Amino acid sequence: MTRQTVTEIRPQVRQYGELTSLEIELAKQSDSLLILPVGACEQHGDGLPVSTDSIRAEHVATAVAEELAGRAFVIPSIDYGVSPHHGNLPGTITLDPRTFVDIVTTVAGQLSDSGFTRILVITGHGGNMAALGVAQQVLLGTHPNLTFAYSPVSALATEATAILPRTEVSGHSGESETSQMLAIDDRLVDSPRLTAGATALDDLLPRARLSRTKSPASAVTFDQYSENGVLGDPRTATATAGDDILGEIVAKLVAYSREMLRL
Amino acid sequence: MTRQTVTEIRPQVRQYGELTSLEIELAKQSDSLLILPVGACEQHGDGLPVSTDSIRAEHVATAVAEELAGRAFVIPSIDYGVSPHHGNLPGTITLDPRTFVDIVTTVAGQLSDSGFTRILVITGHGGNMAALGVAQQVLLGTHPNLTFAYSPVSALATEATAILPRTEVSGHSGESETSQMLAIDDRLVDSPRLTAGATALDDLLPRARLSRTKSPASAVTFDQYSENGVLGDPRTATATAGDDILGEIVAKLVAYSREMLRL
Amino acid sequence: MTRQTVTEIRPQVRQYGELTSLEIELAKQSDSLLILPVGACEQHGDGLPVSTDSIRAEHVATAVAEELAGRAFVIPSIDYGVSPHHGNLPGTITLDPRTFVDIVTTVAGQLSDSGFTRILVITGHGGNMAALGVAQQVLLGTHPNLTFAYSPVSALATEATAILPRTEVSGHSGESETSQMLAIDDRLVDSPRLTAGATALDDLLPRARLSRTKSPASAVTFDQYSENGVLGDPRTATATAGDDILGEIVAKLVAYSREMLRL
Amino acid sequence: MTRQTVTEIRPQVRQYGELTSLEIELAKQSDSLLILPVGACEQHGDGLPVSTDSIRAEHVATAVAEELAGRAFVIPSIDYGVSPHHGNLPGTITLDPRTFVDIVTTVAGQLSDSGFTRILVITGHGGNMAALGVAQQVLLGTHPNLTFAYSPVSALATEATAILPRTEVSGHSGESETSQMLAIDDRLVDSPRLTAGATALDDLLPRARLSRTKSPASAVTFDQYSENGVLGDPRTATATAGDDILGEIVAKLVAYSREMLRL
Amino acid sequence: MTRQTVTEIRPQVRQYGELTSLEIELAKQSDSLLILPVGACEQHGDGLPVSTDSIRAEHVATAVAEELAGRAFVIPSIDYGVSPHHGNLPGTITLDPRTFVDIVTTVAGQLSDSGFTRILVITGHGGNMAALGVAQQVLLGTHPNLTFAYSPVSALATEATAILPRTEVSGHSGESETSQMLAIDDRLVDSPRLTAGATALDDLLPRARLSRTKSPASAVTFDQYSENGVLGDPRTATATAGDDILGEIVAKLVAYSREMLRL
Amino acid sequence: MTRQTVTEIRPQVRQYGELTSLEIELAKQSDSLLILPVGACEQHGDGLPVSTDSIRAEHVATAVAEELAGRAFVIPSIDYGVSPHHGNLPGTITLDPRTFVDIVTTVAGQLSDSGFTRILVITGHGGNMAALGVAQQVLLGTHPNLTFAYSPVSALATEATAILPRTEVSGHSGESETSQMLAIDDRLVDSPRLTAGATALDDLLPRARLSRTKSPASAVTFDQYSENGVLGDPRTATATAGDDILGEIVAKLVAYSREMLRL
Repeated sequence: MTRQTVTEIRPQVRQYGELTSLEIELAKQSDSLLILPVGACEQHGDGLPVSTDSIRAEHVATAVAEELAGRAFVIPSIDYGVSPHHGNLPGTITLDPRTFVDIVTTVAGQLSDSGFTRILVITGHGGNMAALGVAQQVLLGTHPNLTFAYSPVSALATEATAILPRTEVSGHSGESETSQMLAIDDRLVDSPRLTAGATALDDLLPRARLSRTKSPASAVTFDQYSENGVLGDPRTATATAGDDILGEIVAKLVAYSREMLRL
Repeated sequence: MTRQTVTEIRPQVRQYGELTSLEIELAKQSDSLLILPVGACEQHGDGLPVSTDSIRAEHVATAVAEELAGRAFVIPSIDYGVSPHHGNLPGTITLDPRTFVDIVTTVAGQLSDSGFTRILVITGHGGNMAALGVAQQVLLGTHPNLTFAYSPVSALATEATAILPRTEVSGHSGESETSQMLAIDDRLVDSPRLTAGATALDDLLPRARLSRTKSPASAVTFDQYSENGVLGDPRTATATAGDDILGEIVAKLVAYSREMLRL
Repeated sequence: MTRQTVTEIRPQVRQYGELTSLEIELAKQSDSLLILPVGACEQHGDGLPVSTDSIRAEHVATAVAEELAGRAFVIPSIDYGVSPHHGNLPGTITLDPRTFVDIVTTVAGQLSDSGFTRILVITGHGGNMAALGVAQQVLLGTHPNLTFAYSPVSALATEATAILPRTEVSGHSGESETSQMLAIDDRLVDSPRLTAGATALDDLLPRARLSRTKSPASAVTFDQYSENGVLGDPRTATATAGDDILGEIVAKLVAYSREMLRL
Repeated sequence: MTRQTVTEIRPQVRQYGELTSLEIELAKQSDSLLILPVGACEQHGDGLPVSTDSIRAEHVATAVAEELAGRAFVIPSIDYGVSPHHGNLPGTITLDPRTFVDIVTTVAGQLSDSGFTRILVITGHGGNMAALGVAQQVLLGTHPNLTFAYSPVSALATEATAILPRTEVSGHSGESETSQMLAIDDRLVDSPRLTAGATALDDLLPRARLSRTKSPASAVTFDQYSENGVLGDPRTATATAGDDILGEIVAKLVAYSREMLRL
Repeated sequence: MTRQTVTEIRPQVRQYGELTSLEIELAKQSDSLLILPVGACEQHGDGLPVSTDSIRAEHVATAVAEELAGRAFVIPSIDYGVSPHHGNLPGTITLDPRTFVDIVTTVAGQLSDSGFTRILVITGHGGNMAALGVAQQVLLGTHPNLTFAYSPVSALATEATAILPRTEVSGHSGESETSQMLAIDDRLVDSPRLTAGATALDDLLPRARLSRTKSPASAVTFDQYSENGVLGDPRTATATAGDDILGEIVAKLVAYSREMLRL
Repeated sequence: MTRQTVTEIRPQVRQYGELTSLEIELAKQSDSLLILPVGACEQHGDGLPVSTDSIRAEHVATAVAEELAGRAFVIPSIDYGVSPHHGNLPGTITLDPRTFVDIVTTVAGQLSDSGFTRILVITGHGGNMAALGVAQQVLLGTHPNLTFAYSPVSALATEATAILPRTEVSGHSGESETSQMLAIDDRLVDSPRLTAGATALDDLLPRARLSRTKSPASAVTFDQYSENGVLGDPRTATATAGDDILGEIVAKLVAYSREMLRL
């Protein structure tokens, strides 16, 4: 038995999971960027699927890897996130944030131990941001030489979102998320059932209204915002707006990834 | 704002993650079976990708759900498994088994709390079996009314495997796994680089040979079996054999799932 | 003060706990096998004591050590096991499987750190097998050079069990376990109160019946099998059958231990 | 023995720790706000003390309670925070973020269980924000009726900071923090030894520069910013500026606290 | 199948582990005391076995149960304790104190849940006292109605120890422990190899001497006391003194147990 | 940028938290003693504040540091302790003892890693003693070269307490603690509301009386001692007695600290 050798990675492969051990050795030698999509499994109102955040994270991650062809690979996604605020509405499955931190630090730590030096986490779910911040701190203590970055998706699209028609209260399962899903694949959206949720601050109960203040940060469960757990009016969403939003997100992450690759 | 109603789940959907909250309520009311595919991200020799076990688990889970159209849904997979025995070979990312148990019991426990009563875990990776056994015990204490079953993939195909040409030592990344991958999608296999690993008991070092005894159970890291971490000779694998193996696995799991649905 | 020296271990001692530090150093130098008996404290029907599994594990471990006189020592047993499935019936005390894993990996890890290289766990309780599998995986990551094996008791006696009169459903507190206890010490058995439990598949409720299928693996609490938590009819048990069963178990473990000592 | 009664809380007391059990019952009956100051014990350059963040948090918390006389009480502070990024410079003591989360959720959870409904955490240390976000998520799952808010200190002073002379790179132990400390008590500052740290983006190494980007978020240890762990030039700090900054922070938190008390 | 009944527990049984489920129900109905012996597996000098503390705990526990015939039962012992201070000398196996606390609180908590109300822990090893104190505090929070007491062994024998010839420094593996072991079974002692350890304060290094002060409490590893890990001169030990010591210990624990049974 | 240097620590500073990084380096070079005050937040009857134990610990720690001017520094205190026994009475906030152990071992372990070698913990609360014992054992395993001592406060004052008028049952919130608080600052005591609690053994319920026995150790929640959670009659307390008690405590700890500094 002689160990095989490979001299290049099959050119069309973007997923780490589709690489062989030999190809991963090559990716390590060229110090590739690894992209980890993380999402959530949580209620998204009457018309969006519960994996909306995972689907968007995976879509963006793959698009970024495509742009960086051969310099970046998407590692297997984590499709459950930190969603206690959605627990009262059907379909939600939430990890304890400490378990989520354990998974992320284990995966990133081992990749660092094995020789990779750059990891970018793309989270389709804002509720994962705090746990990702904690994961980053844990990794800074255990793997100080690893460059570990993490980014939300929707929040990057400042320009495309600025021209989107949005209600005063808008966010979860609202105009932006629904547009993105229509752009990715309109079969994923049950369009006839899209329904507005909370759309005006005055409609909110005091504690829910307070939670919309940026700082200090407070929080309520999403059934306290509206009966269907939606912020905004998804009925105005369009695939065209979604394309613009996703385009801006991908462009910004590609630019950032190139910075990481230059380190 | 009036909450929408749905009276049936869109007929072509098999993935829980593609359902809306309203549809999941319907699935719960009809006491659907939920199928959780779990895999691994670990070395699979020179020619198979590191997500081989995840890909097979997902494939089988979806095929089973397809057969049970509308009575079963595939929940988001866990694509990292328990693989300390592969840690010395490139590409492997392993979870601590206790973290793996936490994820499975969290997901299953919440689904049970929300009203589902039947969960079937399909693992493409044998190394997850012990942790799944522990998860089952934890759940038996916390959720005694949940029927929680788990199954390997390859080991179910006793008949199709019996007629497969296999070397004396055979298993990980060997004839059966490779055949299954060829049947699923031959682009996932780097066929020119498939190489035999350990094939005969006499070739093994004493401690590795001892670990092939069924009982008592001992274990070694896979680099002690062979340089490329393979057991068997994957070069004899064929897509046809893979179809037979996968067919037998799916048929057995469909039959079992019907038993679960009858409870 | 001069440190004493010993040149040989007192010849009749089989228990690690009865050795002095000086003797343990000698045992380490000769690379002795260490045997860890693990049991359970759980209901065993109306006629067997709750420590049945611990008593059998300890008995077998000591018998094996006796055969290997001076090459193997029995370390202090763990007399609580993983028994959530028996929790509804009186007398059961169960550890969380994660605590059980912690104990086993701590004990084995320290023995390995101190210089021992071979540990054989003998479990009198099948419910410990999954946790032992997890412990083995944890140890493979932290102590790859330790040969850590584990074995059940009853399941090894394939030949002696084959000729035992057994009911269609048989197992916990049934013909084999009761025979073993009669052979060890018939005062441990409250023979007048031995009562049959579940004996035929048709008597079982559907979910209990499903759990008797080998694969996929599901589970129920033992009060769902029968009111007294017994599988089989222990009234047919005999000390003679028990001697045969124990003899086969010990012989197989002695043979295996000799393999381990040859490594 | 007759249990004493009190009809009012001693008017000058602001600290929960200085109240008796009887007074705490009264505070609970009037649904008082509880304020938890959290800080850090970490390097703050050559001229600021390591408890700078704790001192500022405690100072602000007490000032807010003073303004709300009798409607708010300061509970005992947590003076160790999450500071892995400062671990390489002398004096730093950091808690694991998971321990920090445990402390905060334990304290807040028990206060909620005992009948309090409003808790405001004031953190003098930005490095605690992620762990506080996680704590909020944990509490949302376990104590959904508790209003749990958290706020940074310096970041609230947008107006006073806008007119502060600040270098291009500025932050930890820089102009704002030093001004605040001078305003609180100038004996806490070793003014002759205040030294500029990193002040311009161009002076930073690439990875440190990248970490100053807002999103995606990456991080480096503070010794990679500058030898003394300082961002900005603390020599331009003044007590007057500090008064303005602290004034703005307290005013904003008082306004927010009144909102919380109105819920 | 009719469930059996028993009307009394077999009169000679003292061990909980030798009772059947039916007998345990009777013991619960008569509100029996449960006695948990805990020991250690740690170096005990050149002449005592490593399980010295477990053997003494088990011996005393059984003697107490014998005196209270039928009112008290000995539950399965925990034979590994908290022994980090002995880790540098051969034979020691130590549990993390947190694991030890988990085991004790799990066992005691389940017995309380099942209906028992009185548990007495007898520890042959002083190093377990702190963890037992913590276990008691945890149980006070979770099972406030359980009377959970714990006691050392040697320290109870104030009178018999007062007349024992003891060196200025005396304790671990010294005159008292060795006498007790000679009284229990002199074959457990390797008498020819008994050797004095540290016997005078002036012989100790400063830090070891400081640790002999009662309060504040400090600690050193036992290899810092003496090369053989012994405190005192075990060569003066006698079985007669051991009988007196054990007699006093048992008498005091029997008296205390009667108090517990009267509650 | 040139790193500053300091040649001496500002002479009046006693708190580690008020030192700069540069001064802490000097303190480390002169191998200073670090003193950690730990307290509790728990009911102290009708007249003492809930932070009584923290206030006394901090007071004593600072007084000891004052005596050792420049050789000892007080590190930030931990103001929540282990108080499950007080949980039924208002105002109590208790940490899980395992969290308390985590905090203490983290703080002490990092200080040891950074170069300090002597830590003295002063606990104002007896309920922390077991957890401190466990922390010491954990540290003995991980940091064997660290001298880690811990001491109670009141229990040291054997002479001053001997001449105090005390009721048969006396302790928590009784004559000694109240006197100490009056001596520290009489505004901290709500003197008109001081009330006697349990004062005689005969007044106690059997289980509470049993818990006053020294060994074996049992425990009850404090509402089982008396309605106000007090042991003794605090109305006889005086500031003069408090001065004597505190004086004796400080003198003994100073003497002990000098021993530690001589190591």
